[in-house]
Parts: sequence; structure tokens; C-alpha cells
Amino acid sequence: MKINCDMGESFGCWAKGQDETVMPFIDMASIACGFHASDPVTMANTVALAKDNNVTIGAHPGYPDLLGFGRRNVDCTEQELFSWMGYQIGALQGICRQQNVDVEYVKPHGALYNTMMKNYEVLETVIRAVAAMAPECPLVVMAITERKGVEHLAQQHGVKLMFEAFSDRAYDDKGFLVNRAIPSAVHSNSEQIISQLQQITEYGTVTTTSGHTFHLSADTVCIHGDGQHALDVASSIRRPHAG
Amino acid sequence: MKINCDMGESFGCWAKGQDETVMPFIDMASIACGFHASDPVTMANTVALAKDNNVTIGAHPGYPDLLGFGRRNVDCTEQELFSWMGYQIGALQGICRQQNVDVEYVKPHGALYNTMMKNYEVLETVIRAVAAMAPECPLVVMAITERKGVEHLAQQHGVKLMFEAFSDRAYDDKGFLVNRAIPSAVHSNSEQIISQLQQITEYGTVTTTSGHTFHLSADTVCIHGDGQHALDVASSIRRPHAG
Amino acid sequence: MKINCDMGESFGCWAKGQDETVMPFIDMASIACGFHASDPVTMANTVALAKDNNVTIGAHPGYPDLLGFGRRNVDCTEQELFSWMGYQIGALQGICRQQNVDVEYVKPHGALYNTMMKNYEVLETVIRAVAAMAPECPLVVMAITERKGVEHLAQQHGVKLMFEAFSDRAYDDKGFLVNRAIPSAVHSNSEQIISQLQQITEYGTVTTTSGHTFHLSADTVCIHGDGQHALDVASSIRRPHAG
Amino acid sequence: MKINCDMGESFGCWAKGQDETVMPFIDMASIACGFHASDPVTMANTVALAKDNNVTIGAHPGYPDLLGFGRRNVDCTEQELFSWMGYQIGALQGICRQQNVDVEYVKPHGALYNTMMKNYEVLETVIRAVAAMAPECPLVVMAITERKGVEHLAQQHGVKLMFEAFSDRAYDDKGFLVNRAIPSAVHSNSEQIISQLQQITEYGTVTTTSGHTFHLSADTVCIHGDGQHALDVASSIRRPHAG
Repeated sequence: MKINCDMGESFGCWAKGQDETVMPFIDMASIACGFHASDPVTMANTVALAKDNNVTIGAHPGYPDLLGFGRRNVDCTEQELFSWMGYQIGALQGICRQQNVDVEYVKPHGALYNTMMKNYEVLETVIRAVAAMAPECPLVVMAITERKGVEHLAQQHGVKLMFEAFSDRAYDDKGFLVNRAIPSAVHSNSEQIISQLQQITEYGTVTTTSGHTFHLSADTVCIHGDGQHALDVASSIRRPHAG
Repeated sequence: MKINCDMGESFGCWAKGQDETVMPFIDMASIACGFHASDPVTMANTVALAKDNNVTIGAHPGYPDLLGFGRRNVDCTEQELFSWMGYQIGALQGICRQQNVDVEYVKPHGALYNTMMKNYEVLETVIRAVAAMAPECPLVVMAITERKGVEHLAQQHGVKLMFEAFSDRAYDDKGFLVNRAIPSAVHSNSEQIISQLQQITEYGTVTTTSGHTFHLSADTVCIHGDGQHALDVASSIRRPHAG
Repeated sequence: MKINCDMGESFGCWAKGQDETVMPFIDMASIACGFHASDPVTMANTVALAKDNNVTIGAHPGYPDLLGFGRRNVDCTEQELFSWMGYQIGALQGICRQQNVDVEYVKPHGALYNTMMKNYEVLETVIRAVAAMAPECPLVVMAITERKGVEHLAQQHGVKLMFEAFSDRAYDDKGFLVNRAIPSAVHSNSEQIISQLQQITEYGTVTTTSGHTFHLSADTVCIHGDGQHALDVASSIRRPHAG
Repeated sequence: MKINCDMGESFGCWAKGQDETVMPFIDMASIACGFHASDPVTMANTVALAKDNNVTIGAHPGYPDLLGFGRRNVDCTEQELFSWMGYQIGALQGICRQQNVDVEYVKPHGALYNTMMKNYEVLETVIRAVAAMAPECPLVVMAITERKGVEHLAQQHGVKLMFEAFSDRAYDDKGFLVNRAIPSAVHSNSEQIISQLQQITEYGTVTTTSGHTFHLSADTVCIHGDGQHALDVASSIRRPHAG
């Protein structure tokens, strides 16, 4: 079970996340690409940090909404979304090439991630965008119960998938994430996050807000690097990479 | 002698240039990358237009100054400039890959172009950035009389050069462009531009504002696509590509 | 019947609209405030142009979406919208004070205008924002048939209203504008626009896409300054102001 | 001697500074206006915080360079700078009016502050901008030894001045701030800052990097709210305002 973490979410002089502390404990770094967070220097520094720690680099494209950190849905045409994906993934690939490493997966961010899991026309555009420019990169999607629709689209366009579970987000009884607008949507203490992380990695199950436990098969589990508990969580199941 | 033209300089709903009209007459399209002009959809449309017309695609990176159209110098560190180049060239490469074409050269825009021709530390950073991620792409630099410094830097880093003359800009007696702040810096009528274009392509010479004529060996000559005269100029020496 | 027109929609080097040509024919200039279009210099030039032509100046705030020209809805909290309004109206007031003139009305732009006419919680936030900082400024809202809800909210917060009809937009049988996504939503020839303009100003009626005619009482009618027909339309019912 | 502090420098989801902790100890809050930092919601929250603490509110306009936090010089015309000032001060005034408070002074930020102290054409544009829209607001300028030039310009345009000393910046023997590019330019420990603050407030003198002590008459002294030592410093000479 791979641990992935959103990384490179600083912007200019504004720091966000604890990338240097957390990087040694994770397997996959999803690096923001300048639309909802990050900037070229932040991206370059984050790529260098991932490279130093032998962490796999992924592109973490989002909607063009820096002010809203990509958490607001942005209505757009297929052509817009297709090009926004191409631009952002390409930009990170450019930064990576300057350091002789590669982008090895793609994971959409925030509202784009949520929208594509609800609207398969959006998902298909995301898949087409990846297929057209980075067909070797798996696309990270949410580990949902009913996967046939998602798998069908991915197969049609020759894109591999990685299914992702979340360690720090509450699940509802349909197996979806509780909306961030609800206070208890994001777990706020390390014990709760570590407990859910271990349940996912060891038992392949998640317990919902109503107490129901369901099976959740996942290829990767997401921790967040900007919470205060990132290090506790990361270090709970890993020893750091040898530097 | 290749004709190059700045292309893809629209932004969102704001149109700029006469790309569709001019594209059939040029050899090389220098496409803005979203920092001083353009956006992902504009870039994608411009790439498609270039592809349709068998025009070579180049990246036209600039300083991050949309409000100033990249015509203001931006003080920055080597690391910033290196990453800004990587980001922008990579972004256009991403858009190109989505259409199965390549970025085949790099030409810096506006103040970045001017600054690198005056400050060889800046030029070296530009060259290093290209060498690190697109070593097969020649860098377009200004066709100046004394080229040894530029050529030495390019050789050091294994980057090819293309020397560029300008059809619509006034030259001073040192062989440099007259500053845009001076009213006569940019030729404003088609006859003058066509005349200078023909002088460059046929005789390899340019006549300065003081009436002096000097030899100017160039690989490519720049016309601008946003002036009213772009089509007159382009069509003066070319028939359109067969569509 | 006052004629209002969106003005100051250029951005940096990108021109939009025919402000200089159209200004002499209108009564009210709705000036963009830098979020969906315009920039401080464009705003200052537009204010000066309105002042020269004795045209009433209004603030035309929009969603923070330059790339989408404010035509995309932006999900936001009440606090965000309240502050976005205060920021934009204040910014234009600042530019106006530098020229010793005033902002005399407020008209939201694009998606914000459409959203507030559909969602009265959004409308109330807009009204509260105006009441808190510019209570002397009427708010321009769409001239709809059923006005009691809008009027009640405005009265509650002590804000005056101006009801607005559109000369160049198709109306449906409910008295709303046809969505821009539909090709016939915006009239594209001068005759059609002039005809609707005259029908509104002379008879106080509008004919819908299905041929139905309904009464539409309006305080002001909107023409658009960026279409090719702006001058035809403006000059159809007005002589220019004496300079 | 008034204590002023840069405030409201967060942006969107990115926090910066310790505004809530420091506000109770200061007299004047210089609030960023959205060009180099801040956004409308941050501005509104900061205005509310200042109001709650009876702290005088000032506008802190900067160059339009969010990525560079306004620390890079931006070449611009007089008209651009004049309008950028009008826009930013007006925007903060708008936010303030929504809370029934006023902007009571203006202090330029970062590179704009440095440039205006070196280039009196820039300073005159800043003064003209303030005179045209907020003539009741004093302009905060650096407390330099030779003040006649600055005072003459301010008098000419009817703008009051406040002279400012810095608690956490090293001074050179000419009485100017040591450039930020030099490592020792910004004091990094609380003792040093508190010592300089007390020397300024109690003795009206500053000791330069070479050990020379000179007289420095100032109306206000600046502390910075984003350093780790902000609270130590603020609390060293003040008890908090009664809430």
C-alpha cells in the first residue's frame, strides 16, 4: 500500500505544508502545478526533495483558482479542462526534466477530483488529457465501491488507474467522503487519522460516520502534509527512507 | 531565411494578433506560454493552427507579468529564471504532446529577450534552462555583430543558436534595436517593414536610423503578427502554404 | 430611459470594446473593477472619458475570474462576496476620487448578475454590501415581471433599485434572458438590436423568442460596447453629447 | 512614538504573520491591499481586528507582484503608479466603509517604499496620488537625515508626512537600511530588535553596522508581524490594549 501526500503547496513567500519533514516517510508526492497552489520555484524545490528521498513524483493539477486553493468547482468546457490538464502536467514535466526525473502519475486536486468522481464526462476529459500526453502515467481516482464505470472509461483510453483511500477524511455510508463544509469531514487528531490509516492498510476496511464498516480495496492511501499531525501520521507506519 | 512570428498572444476573451491570417505565410510560430500572454486554450488552438499549416512550433517564454505583457524587466534570481523557463517550455510541450507535435525551438519574449542580450549571466541561465530540458531545441537570439560571447556560452552547454533579425524594428549604429520608448522604434507602415525584410533576406544588410548600412547575417527574421501590416508583410515574400 | 453600457473592459495591452466611440451616446457607464476585466489604468482612462462626456459612472463588479471574464459562476461564502463587492466598488471610488468624480450606481457583471437574480441569498449579500458602503448608489437589477421579492430586500436594507432591460439579448417566455450557451441568445445584427431597443424605450415591451410580447417596465436599457454594432445601436436613438 | 506593523499579509488559504497576537500591542496597522499580498476577506478580517483593538488603520499599497511579495522593483509610468495607488487605497477604503471605519494613513510597501526614497519622481507620484484621493492621510516615509527634499514635495501637494524608523533592520552609515540581499540586513533575534526599538524610542538614536551612532528623529517605529519575534518585541514596550 503506497502512501501519497499532497506536496509543493506553498506559493511565493507563503509557506504551506511540512514537505521537508514528511517527504522521508511517503512513497508518492503529488505536486501542485501552479493553478491552485505552487509556483515554478516551489515545484523545482519539491521535485528535488522528492528525488533526494527516492519518492515517486506525480502531477497534482487543479482548477485555475489560486484564491480558492482549487476547492471551488469551476465550470468549464471539455476543451478548457483538457488544455488545463495538458498545461499543468507539461509544466511539471518540464521542471522534472530539468532535474532528470519523470512525472510518474497524475492525481487531480480538490474540486476537480471531486467533480470527476461525480461527473463521468469530466472524468473522461481528464482521462483523455492524460492518455494524450502521459499514457504511461496511472491516474489516481477515489477508491469507490462501484468501479465499473471508471474502469471502463480508463480502459477505453488506455489509461491505468490507482484507487485511493483517505486516512484523514470521514466516509459516509455510500462510501464517499463527507463534504468539507461539514465540521467533522476532516479528522483533526492524530490518533483518529493513524487508526483509519492502519485500518485501511492492514484490514482494507473503513468505518463510516454512522459506525458501519465496509471493505475498501485501495492501491494507495492519502495523508495530508499541511495538517499539524502530518509527521505523527507519516511516522506511524514508516521509518524514514535512508537519505 | 526562415520567417518567425510571435503567435498565441491572446488571453481569455481578449484577442490579439491575426494568427489565422498570418500563419499560412510563416515558417516558425513562437507561441506565448501563459506568463506574459496566452492561456492553455489559446496555446492549444495556436498549436493546432501551426500544425495545420506545417509551421514549426517554438516556445516563447517571458517574465511573469501579464499586466505588462512581459515588456517590463523583472529582477529575479538564477533559480527563479531557470524554473520559469522550465515551467513555460514544459507547459507548451504538454499542450503539444496532446496534439502529437513537438516544441522545436525556444525564443524568449520581450524584456527577457532584451535583458539576456545585455546581461550574459541572464543569457547563461536561459541557455542552461534549455540545455537541461530541451537540448535539441535551438535558442533564438538577436543577430548581433559581435557573437563570440554568445556562441561560447551556447557551446559550453551544448545548445544550438539561431540568429534573428527584425523586419519592423529600427536599428541603431551599434546594431542594436532602438528602445521601444522612442517613437520611431517600431516601423509603422508596411512599405518600410517590407523594404527592411527584403533587404535582410536578399542582401543580408540593415540600414540604421542614421542611414548607415551594415552586414547582418541571420538565420531567421521576425515579423509581428499583431500589427495592422502583418498580412501585407507576410504575403510580400511568401505564398501561403498549401492548406 | 437611460442607456447604460459596460465599459472599461480592456486589460493591460488587450483592448476590448469601443469605449471612445460609444461613450458620447450613452448615459451610464458601468466600469469593470479589475476582477473579471480592467486594470487601474484602464479604469482611470475610462473614468476620464466618462467625465469628459458627462456620463454617469457606475461600478461593475464581477467574480474574481479574469480568465473566464466573470461569466462563470464562482461558489463563495457570504463573507467572500460581501468583501469582493467592497473591494471592487472601493477601488473604483478611489480612482474616481483621483479625478474628483463619484461612483453613482452599482451593476454586478456577468455570472454574478445572473446568480443574484436567481438566488436571493446572493442578492441580499450584494444589497448588504452596497448598503454598507455606498447607500446612495442605486443597484441595477434585471427588470423582471415579479419584483416584490427584490424590492422587499432592497427596502429592508435601504438600497434603491434601477430595473434594467437588454437591447441585444433574447428573452424567453418567462421574461428571463436566454442562456448565452444557446447560439441565438445574443442578437448579432444591428437591426435586431435597434428594433428591440426602440420597442423597449418607446412601447415598454419585449418580444420573446417564441413571438410572445410582454410588458417590461425599465429604468435603463443596456447596450454592449464590445459588439461590432455598438455604434450603430448607440447612435440610433441618440445624438452624441456636446463634447 | 507610535508603533506600526505590517498586517493583513495572508493570501487566500496561505497564512502569514501573527496578526491576532500582535494587534493588541501596536498603534498603527499597515494593511496590504491585494497587489503584493492580502485579498478582500483577509483585508476585512484585519480591519475588524484593528477596529476591535482601537488600532489606527493605514493602507499599505505595493507593486502588482504577488509572486514576489512586492519586493521586486516594477518599472512603470507615472500614470500606472498613480492609478495603482488610487486602486489599492480605494479598495481598502471600501472595505473599511463596510465596517464604518476609515483609512487614516498611507505607507507604501517593500520595493515601492525603497524606490520612492531613492527616486523623487516616484515619490512625487506617490504624494500626488495620496493628495488626490486621501489628502487627510499622512504618508509614512523613511526617517532619513536629509529631509528637505521630501518635505518640500509633500508641502507642495499638501500632504502631511510621518517619519518612520525600523526596529529590526540594520542601518548603514548613511542612515539608510542595509539591503535585504545582505544576510545581516534583518535582525534575527528578539534582543537585538528590542534593543534597537528601545534606543529609537527612548534616545532617538540608531547604531549602524559599523558601530556609529546617529540621531534619528521619528514619528513612528516599524516592527514586523511575520517574524518569530513579533510578540516578544511588541510586548517589550507595551501592555496590550484593553480588549
